[in-house]
Amino acid sequence: MTVRVAVAGASGYAGGELLRLLLAHPGVEIGALTGNSNAGQRLGALQPHLAPLADRVLEPTTAEALAGHDAVFLALPHGQSAAVAEQLGDEVLVVDMGADFRLRDAADWERFYGSPHAGTWPYGLPELPGARAALEGSRRVAVPGCYPTAVSLALFPAYAHGLAEPEAVVVAASGTSGAGKAPKPHLLGSEVMGSMTPYGVGGSHRHTPEMAQNLGAVAGEPVTVSFTPTLAPMSRGILATCSAKARPGTTGEALRAAYEKAYADEPFVRLLPEGQWPATASVQGSNAVQVQVAYDGTAGRLIAVSAIDNLTKGTAGGAVQSMNIALGLPEETGLSTIGVAP
Amino acid sequence: MTVRVAVAGASGYAGGELLRLLLAHPGVEIGALTGNSNAGQRLGALQPHLAPLADRVLEPTTAEALAGHDAVFLALPHGQSAAVAEQLGDEVLVVDMGADFRLRDAADWERFYGSPHAGTWPYGLPELPGARAALEGSRRVAVPGCYPTAVSLALFPAYAHGLAEPEAVVVAASGTSGAGKAPKPHLLGSEVMGSMTPYGVGGSHRHTPEMAQNLGAVAGEPVTVSFTPTLAPMSRGILATCSAKARPGTTGEALRAAYEKAYADEPFVRLLPEGQWPATASVQGSNAVQVQVAYDGTAGRLIAVSAIDNLTKGTAGGAVQSMNIALGLPEETGLSTIGVAP
Amino acid sequence: MTVRVAVAGASGYAGGELLRLLLAHPGVEIGALTGNSNAGQRLGALQPHLAPLADRVLEPTTAEALAGHDAVFLALPHGQSAAVAEQLGDEVLVVDMGADFRLRDAADWERFYGSPHAGTWPYGLPELPGARAALEGSRRVAVPGCYPTAVSLALFPAYAHGLAEPEAVVVAASGTSGAGKAPKPHLLGSEVMGSMTPYGVGGSHRHTPEMAQNLGAVAGEPVTVSFTPTLAPMSRGILATCSAKARPGTTGEALRAAYEKAYADEPFVRLLPEGQWPATASVQGSNAVQVQVAYDGTAGRLIAVSAIDNLTKGTAGGAVQSMNIALGLPEETGLSTIGVAP
Amino acid sequence: MTVRVAVAGASGYAGGELLRLLLAHPGVEIGALTGNSNAGQRLGALQPHLAPLADRVLEPTTAEALAGHDAVFLALPHGQSAAVAEQLGDEVLVVDMGADFRLRDAADWERFYGSPHAGTWPYGLPELPGARAALEGSRRVAVPGCYPTAVSLALFPAYAHGLAEPEAVVVAASGTSGAGKAPKPHLLGSEVMGSMTPYGVGGSHRHTPEMAQNLGAVAGEPVTVSFTPTLAPMSRGILATCSAKARPGTTGEALRAAYEKAYADEPFVRLLPEGQWPATASVQGSNAVQVQVAYDGTAGRLIAVSAIDNLTKGTAGGAVQSMNIALGLPEETGLSTIGVAP
Repeated sequence: MTVRVAVAGASGYAGGELLRLLLAHPGVEIGALTGNSNAGQRLGALQPHLAPLADRVLEPTTAEALAGHDAVFLALPHGQSAAVAEQLGDEVLVVDMGADFRLRDAADWERFYGSPHAGTWPYGLPELPGARAALEGSRRVAVPGCYPTAVSLALFPAYAHGLAEPEAVVVAASGTSGAGKAPKPHLLGSEVMGSMTPYGVGGSHRHTPEMAQNLGAVAGEPVTVSFTPTLAPMSRGILATCSAKARPGTTGEALRAAYEKAYADEPFVRLLPEGQWPATASVQGSNAVQVQVAYDGTAGRLIAVSAIDNLTKGTAGGAVQSMNIALGLPEETGLSTIGVAP
Repeated sequence: MTVRVAVAGASGYAGGELLRLLLAHPGVEIGALTGNSNAGQRLGALQPHLAPLADRVLEPTTAEALAGHDAVFLALPHGQSAAVAEQLGDEVLVVDMGADFRLRDAADWERFYGSPHAGTWPYGLPELPGARAALEGSRRVAVPGCYPTAVSLALFPAYAHGLAEPEAVVVAASGTSGAGKAPKPHLLGSEVMGSMTPYGVGGSHRHTPEMAQNLGAVAGEPVTVSFTPTLAPMSRGILATCSAKARPGTTGEALRAAYEKAYADEPFVRLLPEGQWPATASVQGSNAVQVQVAYDGTAGRLIAVSAIDNLTKGTAGGAVQSMNIALGLPEETGLSTIGVAP
Repeated sequence: MTVRVAVAGASGYAGGELLRLLLAHPGVEIGALTGNSNAGQRLGALQPHLAPLADRVLEPTTAEALAGHDAVFLALPHGQSAAVAEQLGDEVLVVDMGADFRLRDAADWERFYGSPHAGTWPYGLPELPGARAALEGSRRVAVPGCYPTAVSLALFPAYAHGLAEPEAVVVAASGTSGAGKAPKPHLLGSEVMGSMTPYGVGGSHRHTPEMAQNLGAVAGEPVTVSFTPTLAPMSRGILATCSAKARPGTTGEALRAAYEKAYADEPFVRLLPEGQWPATASVQGSNAVQVQVAYDGTAGRLIAVSAIDNLTKGTAGGAVQSMNIALGLPEETGLSTIGVAP
Repeated sequence: MTVRVAVAGASGYAGGELLRLLLAHPGVEIGALTGNSNAGQRLGALQPHLAPLADRVLEPTTAEALAGHDAVFLALPHGQSAAVAEQLGDEVLVVDMGADFRLRDAADWERFYGSPHAGTWPYGLPELPGARAALEGSRRVAVPGCYPTAVSLALFPAYAHGLAEPEAVVVAASGTSGAGKAPKPHLLGSEVMGSMTPYGVGGSHRHTPEMAQNLGAVAGEPVTVSFTPTLAPMSRGILATCSAKARPGTTGEALRAAYEKAYADEPFVRLLPEGQWPATASVQGSNAVQVQVAYDGTAGRLIAVSAIDNLTKGTAGGAVQSMNIALGLPEETGLSTIGVAP
């Protein structure tokens, strides 16, 4: 079987990373590539690293351009996916790399995104309890946000085993590609090199309710998340440093056992040997997740850290992984756990 | 008055930064420069940015070399300062940039540093309540650790006004110069560029008890600190993202008022306008501290963030500031609040 | 004497660096600060590193705003300086940090800049033969381009002593701040980190005729310059690697003697000891220039390398140095040769 | 056919990159992995990005360990390969990633490497005239140096068509991984971030005679190379900026035609469209080479620029490409032309 794939939004970072992965996917044929402001341009000028596609030209994002494919990936600005998806048949796999269909709570959506809620699709983080089954055979997938991917994988085993109080504290560092390719002064190389700075502080970042949704579902009770993202001087990668007060009786051994159980059979998540901590360079360009957990007896908290590549497992790799599951392909097809380091 | 200054440990990053600042200090004459493994070498080969001192040669660190100065700065490995200080007269100002005299609790010292406690000297973070007065006229100064400087200044106003529960959670990103100049594989440029990674996780970092000491003294009760340091791909700078559960009744306004009061008259600490967040690039090479605070009503936590240059305010600048106070010079002499950016 | 200074174009990188230096200049009072698109904004939002000026508000760039100052610095887009300068009195020192008055050859100007030639002002690179004298007492100064500063200082001693054939080959790496603060996709942090790329290849860069002008004047014959600039993953700094075929009889000793003579009394240029090579980090934030030269007997070429900070000696520092000379202040006032490293 | 491969020197950057590629090679089975100082350690601790090999343990580099493989890759310090190779049978493919068998001129070898010349093996740069044929069926391969790979591919078409005078000038910027993993002070992240610096200036770099050998063979006459390498603040990548005086009658069109002809059928080298210039980020992690050329009429020189990943096409990718040719596998097997960007 060859899956014929279209990509709407092929000129941005998420679209480019998706194409990088699809080019290496043995079961995929790359069909229409669309953009809006960049329609008519050669991909070679926009994504010079994608040599095999250099001569492809972007079409405008229209229903006609996207028709006739088995799968359509949407890498569009938030709020634009629903209108496009409606024009695609129910038999077409639509993988939304935007936020539109991630949240179950309409009020959360409206508060954080300021527009009417479009609905909820099966959630493309198969490592979460129940998520893989919901993706199998689905023709609609909501790819998680990059931060919620890192944070949910760092913390959910602790909540699944009742080891953590329902108040998580997260500080995450992200490479600048997470902020996209639209040029803004604070994203200039001159500004970001040599600098660390937080943004969206105080619970205002849009990924906050998505984290709370994921962890609350696992915990079986509401979990609040104090989330502070920071911009780091690197192109790719998220390091999520997460902690929560340990429930009474929690030990380092119990924590390790919970994480070992959660990730024993997961192809992309690796609980590191004790004493070794995640590093974003180790997962660069791959769909791998490195996780480690420790118990701080003095502070009475568990600390869980994960590293992902925000563009791969955090976006395009997670999308391909979900496509594989939805279409019944082996989950690891076209994806790697080997980072490009140093 | 001209202060004749000696620097023990002039070949490392702390020593180099100190010399950079002392060269710009109008009341200082730079005397002996010592090193151990680098004794006999020209400073121009070791610190090529210090052009005016290029032809100075490092002497071995001996009592003879350090004698005859008004002030001696010690940038030595932990545990070596006491023996050197004992050989210097009581009338000589000794500024220890190592950890030896920072902690008041001997048990803490022994647990984290593994050697007998040498004592406690006046603490060189004049912004803390009571600290400036203790430094005035003192002939012994313990320069704080770089992380404790950033964290204490981010959080102490909240504790001073009873706005925070005594369980702080800190995740701090540091530039690689904080790890020193001794070559180790994980500090190679190839390893650190493009990578974020934590270390000393779970309460094991030596700066943890120092933070707890500072915040506990202000709060009037023990404060635990869950501290996770991370290594960031930049040479300089610390961004400390700190949070704590807010005490009942805490509001954003009360927080802001507390921080405004704490820093109204401080020459080096600036509470940023609301909505603007600290960035390490903005304080690079300067003794400035940028601070911001916010209240997250959903999570019920206050988030306080500070940015410093780990080598300047975090080490050598704090040392010069304390020297100025100890010797009765204007506190800002030779120090700047202007960062080298972009 | 206090020099009252206005800065037109205070929101960009050149203007920000100039203000950083002027704040440390003991003989200067900072007057009007102007901008165009940013007029009305607080400087604290635009240049967060300039803490002492955080509450200053930018005015529009008008003759009224700039009137009543002893010196006016123009950090404007190319082609706009002449109109502003005309409105300022002859007794006012006007220092143009743009290109408008650098070239003597009108045809060169028109070919590379595409607009009518505005004239030629005394050239603000006092280290060149005759340049310092021309600056003394002048009320108009053309600050050199950043690349021509680095390249001219690397090569002129060889041409002054007849040691090099008149065909120079230059490859220079620049930090991204040289490309300015206007956001463009190829200047995003995500694009520049981890990447080296050339631009303006093949003789098309506007700084090429300025280099040829400087070297030709010293050589007493036309000198062609093959110039390739490259964009490096760093915020600041230029490393200029320059070479030329050695004239018959040239030796390494003759080269070294020529450079020693050229720079024996220059306060900002340092010929490094043999075997030590320039590094941009060593001059970061300073007005220093590091120079080294070698003779490659196999290739029959001399290789001369210089490192500067493009924003300091390459722009704002050179401007302040020229102001000092023009106004009869000690040339080093407010300027440093000490880099901010590591 | 499955090729059973051993890697001697698996703990360094070249060895790690080779393993990254071999893991993705469908015709390879990874056998013995050896090291010297790191023998006995888990690869997961040394190469944390190579998740699938995390539990493999390094053996000492002995004839026994390397016996019984179809191919043995040597990533050893210079001068050690000959002794190891002698112990391997003639039927075993030995791919030397060190310098030992690259140079044909024994005097060159002795002058630059200071030890007796071990011999010359078929040269693993198949894009050079005649090189591919020499590799076919060979059981010994000398992998080129990273700089010679970049420089030879940038310049050889000009020399092959008689368009360039035999005096090349090369300035190349390399990421720090080219300097290896042994920790040295000048390779610390604190030193290299934000800094550009040259090294091995004046014809002393060991890769110089290798470039001259390659270009001279193509030109049919001796070619001198003035080569200046520079260390750039990035982990990977080489940007080689090369130029030479154009032979009389050379035009931009003739140059372009020469390069189009040279690279029309090469799977890994791409002559970019006119006006687009190579960038190291675009080839990161891939075996791709980007090349561009221009003619500077004013200076009378051709400028040719290439970008490679020093660890991939510059070392391990070139080694795998040569293995494929030697063993009769399709040349592109296991290799990609798609960079990991941004």
